[in-house]
Amino acid sequence: MTGRPSRRQLFGVAGAAAVGAAAGGAIVAVDNEAPQQPPVRAISPYGEHQPAIAGPTPEHAELVALNLLPETDKAALGRLMRLWSDDIVALADGRPAPGDSTPELAVANVALTTTVGLGPRVFELTGHKPPGLDDLPVMRHDRLEPAWSGGDLLVMVGADDAVSVVHAVRRLVADAKPFATPLWRQTGFWNSTGADGRPVTGRNLFGQVDGTGNPAVGTPDFDHTVWSSDGPEWFRRGTTLVVRRIRMNLDAWDELTRSEQERAVGRTLSTGAPLTGSAEHDELDLQARDADGRLVIAENSHARLSHHSVNDGRRIFRKGLNYVQDNGPTRESGLIFLSHQADVAGQFLPLLARLDAADALNDWTTTIGSAVFALPPGFQADSWLAHELLS
Amino acid sequence: MTGRPSRRQLFGVAGAAAVGAAAGGAIVAVDNEAPQQPPVRAISPYGEHQPAIAGPTPEHAELVALNLLPETDKAALGRLMRLWSDDIVALADGRPAPGDSTPELAVANVALTTTVGLGPRVFELTGHKPPGLDDLPVMRHDRLEPAWSGGDLLVMVGADDAVSVVHAVRRLVADAKPFATPLWRQTGFWNSTGADGRPVTGRNLFGQVDGTGNPAVGTPDFDHTVWSSDGPEWFRRGTTLVVRRIRMNLDAWDELTRSEQERAVGRTLSTGAPLTGSAEHDELDLQARDADGRLVIAENSHARLSHHSVNDGRRIFRKGLNYVQDNGPTRESGLIFLSHQADVAGQFLPLLARLDAADALNDWTTTIGSAVFALPPGFQADSWLAHELLS
Repeated sequence: MTGRPSRRQLFGVAGAAAVGAAAGGAIVAVDNEAPQQPPVRAISPYGEHQPAIAGPTPEHAELVALNLLPETDKAALGRLMRLWSDDIVALADGRPAPGDSTPELAVANVALTTTVGLGPRVFELTGHKPPGLDDLPVMRHDRLEPAWSGGDLLVMVGADDAVSVVHAVRRLVADAKPFATPLWRQTGFWNSTGADGRPVTGRNLFGQVDGTGNPAVGTPDFDHTVWSSDGPEWFRRGTTLVVRRIRMNLDAWDELTRSEQERAVGRTLSTGAPLTGSAEHDELDLQARDADGRLVIAENSHARLSHHSVNDGRRIFRKGLNYVQDNGPTRESGLIFLSHQADVAGQFLPLLARLDAADALNDWTTTIGSAVFALPPGFQADSWLAHELLS
Repeated sequence: MTGRPSRRQLFGVAGAAAVGAAAGGAIVAVDNEAPQQPPVRAISPYGEHQPAIAGPTPEHAELVALNLLPETDKAALGRLMRLWSDDIVALADGRPAPGDSTPELAVANVALTTTVGLGPRVFELTGHKPPGLDDLPVMRHDRLEPAWSGGDLLVMVGADDAVSVVHAVRRLVADAKPFATPLWRQTGFWNSTGADGRPVTGRNLFGQVDGTGNPAVGTPDFDHTVWSSDGPEWFRRGTTLVVRRIRMNLDAWDELTRSEQERAVGRTLSTGAPLTGSAEHDELDLQARDADGRLVIAENSHARLSHHSVNDGRRIFRKGLNYVQDNGPTRESGLIFLSHQADVAGQFLPLLARLDAADALNDWTTTIGSAVFALPPGFQADSWLAHELLS
């Protein structure tokens, strides 16, 4: 409408440029009048693992938890997984799923991914429960609301475009109707792109860089942390997901000085660097003391208590989505905390207990929802989700 | 984290490319290793008009209506407008506004715009009310909820990035606290980029191309439709905004056949073309009849009833934002309908009355919120919003 192009309009140009760059830093002709190459922003729905897990946090995502209807048995759940697998392939490709009533809302090149999970109760039907996959015990600081907790199935859609997320979720929930009914829905957003267009870790609504401590994707540490390698056969190359809805008291947080905020986190707000370092990914020096002999990264700071070295080396791979929830004129803000690990009980629970006991951030955060899911491994073109469990 | 770049990461490359292209279709070297030019996605906060009005629909937007506190007089309102003008300049620039408690959430290059409006009651304080600026009468099909209606002030923030919108709105609402208190908040999203990266009109959640009938930005027709040229002196180059929250019954709509849907709209769903044409922007043939002698664009179709030729040539410039509103496991979907016109009573009201009386879409849509605002003209670096009214 005006001369100002949108991000994805610019990105149309970039699609061509990126193809050239991928071919080895080539020279690319850009001409506003010439037809642009369509950008390649489709993510294959197939693979060893469900594809979103190791990918970047999407700009938009919606999570829906559903409960199985009483009449849904193992065979019916298998039918739903076949149906969803077909939907997932179509949606990833920007095609309408079968039976789509608004097929024009299926658009390609929005990096759409769908992730499916199975809650603990599903394994009463199927057996072969991944060890440690149980609802988390209620922590001392938790104020769990049924509206945001539990669920037999999870479907999570992420994309670059909010319309596409809403459309995909509607299709998936509609197809589940004979089998399962929605229990809760959570919608979140994240920005993992810096002002210069480079990838960044992203910030939560306290302004903190959030997610720095993760194992790097593709490293043995990552693989060991995330993918199941023992437990039931069907679950190899799968992972688990913990979803915690964490309300954040922005007004109370704002009343702190910046140094109080940084002491609670153990990191510098501006860069995300540990208080003992200068760059975001500097290793924490957990022994360093200041001139007064106090630990620089305080005993109860979030960075210390969540560091794998104080958790017997156990790690998690965590992501987050910011959320806002309006109740008329008032607004609640928070984080949809997402943690992947091979084993919830072995990796996540000890960390959670430690944070619940002492984390300085507990003064300004309250967990109001909690759920755990097993995420089956990925599927290939000749197969479907969780077929090894449900065939 | 993975090799897959996000839209805005690609867009970092595109920033450089676009600069080259703007210089005349130049050849641009793209090298993934070299530092990228920061993309230029800042929109000047200054100008003859508030800058978002004639711009494209943002990917994300939030509207907050506020009511003035009883003690807020004309002078106090002037102080708020000065404060907001400073905020608007900082936020557009990606800088934290003065007093920002989470300054790191202010990021540049997200095409952030802020638009401010004054509700009808404000002019009881100030005088000089734009003619025709009154709350709309309640229509027969309206089911207005106080939670989404009215307001003395409007602040609307749009951007490419949802985190930036939330951050900016929080700052603006915080600065208003001594003067005004939030009445309602509405959050919406839109996709005006096609799969190939080109600009498109965008679709609502019925799947309809929505907004085709607008006068083209920059034409005399647009200027005449949107910008006030008579009425009080301070309001010249300003416009009005009608905000209608329209709930859409997606499930009932889905039960129609596609030809029933297209007959209700008067346009083809796939392309948005009128039923008498083949391309989206083809002119409607309102006289054309089919083999049975029936009007092709039906008497009660939305396209006919909203066409300016059946409204004495009166036009509006309308935009829309899709919304979803979750109530536990259930979801409401709809459109935040936004209409700009120089004169609400003269241009919008006759159209609204005509649609309320007969529009086929009334069967699947219900307006649950309604508000009108005068949007002051833009301001320059040495001035502030609505200074001609409030000085």
